[in-house]
Amino acid sequence: MNAPLKSFDEACDLPALMTELASGARRAARVLALASSEQKNTALAAMAKAIRAASAQIIAANAEDVAEAKAHDATAAFIDRLTVNEARMAAMADSIDVVRDIPDPVGTISETWTRPNGMTIERVRVPLGVVAVIFESRPNVLADAGTLCLKSGNAVILRGGSDSFRSCSAIHACLVQGLREAGLPEAAITLVPTRDRAAVGLLLTGLNGGIDVIVPRGGKSLVARVESEARVPVFAHLEGVNHVYVDKAASLDMAKTIVLNAKMRRPGVCGAAETLLVDKAAASAQLKPLVKMLIEAGCEVRGDSEVQHADARVKPATEEDWGTEYEDAIIAAKVVDGVDDAIAHIERYGSHHTDAIVTEDSKVAEKFLNQVDSAIVLHNASTQFADGGEFGFGAEIGIATGKFHARGPVGVEQLTSFKYRVHGTGQTRP
Amino acid sequence: MNAPLKSFDEACDLPALMTELASGARRAARVLALASSEQKNTALAAMAKAIRAASAQIIAANAEDVAEAKAHDATAAFIDRLTVNEARMAAMADSIDVVRDIPDPVGTISETWTRPNGMTIERVRVPLGVVAVIFESRPNVLADAGTLCLKSGNAVILRGGSDSFRSCSAIHACLVQGLREAGLPEAAITLVPTRDRAAVGLLLTGLNGGIDVIVPRGGKSLVARVESEARVPVFAHLEGVNHVYVDKAASLDMAKTIVLNAKMRRPGVCGAAETLLVDKAAASAQLKPLVKMLIEAGCEVRGDSEVQHADARVKPATEEDWGTEYEDAIIAAKVVDGVDDAIAHIERYGSHHTDAIVTEDSKVAEKFLNQVDSAIVLHNASTQFADGGEFGFGAEIGIATGKFHARGPVGVEQLTSFKYRVHGTGQTRP
Repeated sequence: MNAPLKSFDEACDLPALMTELASGARRAARVLALASSEQKNTALAAMAKAIRAASAQIIAANAEDVAEAKAHDATAAFIDRLTVNEARMAAMADSIDVVRDIPDPVGTISETWTRPNGMTIERVRVPLGVVAVIFESRPNVLADAGTLCLKSGNAVILRGGSDSFRSCSAIHACLVQGLREAGLPEAAITLVPTRDRAAVGLLLTGLNGGIDVIVPRGGKSLVARVESEARVPVFAHLEGVNHVYVDKAASLDMAKTIVLNAKMRRPGVCGAAETLLVDKAAASAQLKPLVKMLIEAGCEVRGDSEVQHADARVKPATEEDWGTEYEDAIIAAKVVDGVDDAIAHIERYGSHHTDAIVTEDSKVAEKFLNQVDSAIVLHNASTQFADGGEFGFGAEIGIATGKFHARGPVGVEQLTSFKYRVHGTGQTRP
Repeated sequence: MNAPLKSFDEACDLPALMTELASGARRAARVLALASSEQKNTALAAMAKAIRAASAQIIAANAEDVAEAKAHDATAAFIDRLTVNEARMAAMADSIDVVRDIPDPVGTISETWTRPNGMTIERVRVPLGVVAVIFESRPNVLADAGTLCLKSGNAVILRGGSDSFRSCSAIHACLVQGLREAGLPEAAITLVPTRDRAAVGLLLTGLNGGIDVIVPRGGKSLVARVESEARVPVFAHLEGVNHVYVDKAASLDMAKTIVLNAKMRRPGVCGAAETLLVDKAAASAQLKPLVKMLIEAGCEVRGDSEVQHADARVKPATEEDWGTEYEDAIIAAKVVDGVDDAIAHIERYGSHHTDAIVTEDSKVAEKFLNQVDSAIVLHNASTQFADGGEFGFGAEIGIATGKFHARGPVGVEQLTSFKYRVHGTGQTRP
């Protein structure tokens, strides 16, 4: 059960290997598309059980990965993302239980209608096919992505960062055990069995129709590369340049609570706020306490001249700051002339991810929610809610900022497509 | 009102022109996204009225296009597609009335739910943005695409075949008049004002984020080019290699009616059947009458050895026939070993467009409908129903065979995306 470091010969025929993996995944996808909810849930239950049982071995395999990463002078943040401990293993298994409890979207009929000629048309959910997930160091992505794809009836090809290879192999073995126990094909969850980085480039080609969609999970450079090179659809967000706009009709207490949470709860997540916009009409009352609160919470504030004027500790913001995702305890702050100016600023500098307004004026809120062209727009709530779990989707494979197919948190439902089933009694077209 | 042949200087800066068109369309898209249903319907009513009023001028402009095409030795089929006459003009205007009557999808809330913390989340439909439609000779595509995009709140950039330039300009003028009367930006429906073929290549680049999706309408070479070169999402089908499977439990009368309609109603449309599959278990009773009927209706039948044996007039089918979209009165025919063999044949040779089964056995029908991985699967109905109008969508901008975002007939609903609107009362994330 312990994770062997399968070291494929560097001279191995990688394109042939990847094509073979994709063919296996495609065959598995056909079986999965028709698998019953019970069979998939049996597999998921067995996976959670296997993960719990193998926890110690997985942590041991992970320790080898961590030791190697440390020997290569990895940063503390990198080591943190790479590390799995007992708490993280427990969370991983619990998360599989959550995915098991999500309703199975496959085969559900979203609409049914009858035509004047008597034909009944149903729109029914079907899986997408083969999903490729390219991730970096967090080994838990493997379990999340593998189980979400299984639940939605998709086969998945996973390619983790080479630093996490032993950890991923150990976790993957547990998922495969679950598939086996449920009588499902092992290729349904395929881990690319080599550290060779050229595998990523091959996945991005789509392997001649072998891959239907790619989900990159990791830093900006990975996402940017996938978005520019991929020859198949991609579910991703490059960055979250998210705004909180505090309107003149905001409750100051609520504004403080939301701004603090939106920026500082976890400054590094994609739903974190990066820019604070304050309405000029109430800036005299609101700006100073908001800025003071942020600075005293340990957040660097970079402001325009009015914001600098509110507090001597504010640093000057440059044009670049308005479009920057800091992923850190830094916020850009600007005074705007009402909701229209806020909307225009967000249109110009935002990344269409998640933006919030704080106001007691429902008309102004409605305008903001309608006109800001982002996947998630919130009224009187923190941007940090940008998360599939917080949306009630159980889990997410990622967050998408594109407008096609998937938008916002991508859960099992958005890992499906649909088809039309038509029931006739001999109808022909006049 | 008559259509001038705007002849842009060949030395004009086409990339600059196209970028400017895309910027104008983007600005118009922002206005359209927020336009009321009433305003859009006012525009549509005015467009239909303008088309009816200008019918004679449009037909005159079209006559010039037709004369030029004839002078260049265009085929009769090409001339037929290019020609507009009074009946076609009336149908065009009627079609705009149908689009006006379709419910406006923009702003409709497809789901609402409340989280345990009291936040309410709404999933609301929003337009996609800027659609580019590249079509060949049929001028009616301009009116269909322009009005469907308007109804769904999208701006559209239309590029018609250069042979139809005068006809398109004349129709376009009527659509612009409708926009003007409703106070909507004229750039909402933009016709590329040059015959320069390099404009197509520029549209396919996506014009630096200026275009959100491309819809090609035309022959296979156009669609194949768009699918291989486009740097933005494409809604399209390359071909419709559609099957009718006649099961052993089929009513022979119904099978004859459906097969005849599926192939011969209009052999050139994308929903036409290209392959007939007959169940071995009933071939002795069904094959002969089906083949006889087709041949006597003027259809060439290319069959495997068993089909050849059924009728001396059957020509031998080659491997290539199973994957061919004839778009003509020709059908490939094969005897298969039950529904599983039929499904396997369709999986191997089909194009995931539209496939039908004829049977009185509901279990067998269910298996076929579930396992055939096509956008549209029908039981006891003709494949020629593959059409947005026949589905009750009012009209369609095209039919998609991809699984992402749009699948099957693409009507106004599938020309939209969605966003999440979150209503809170000060919630922060723990």
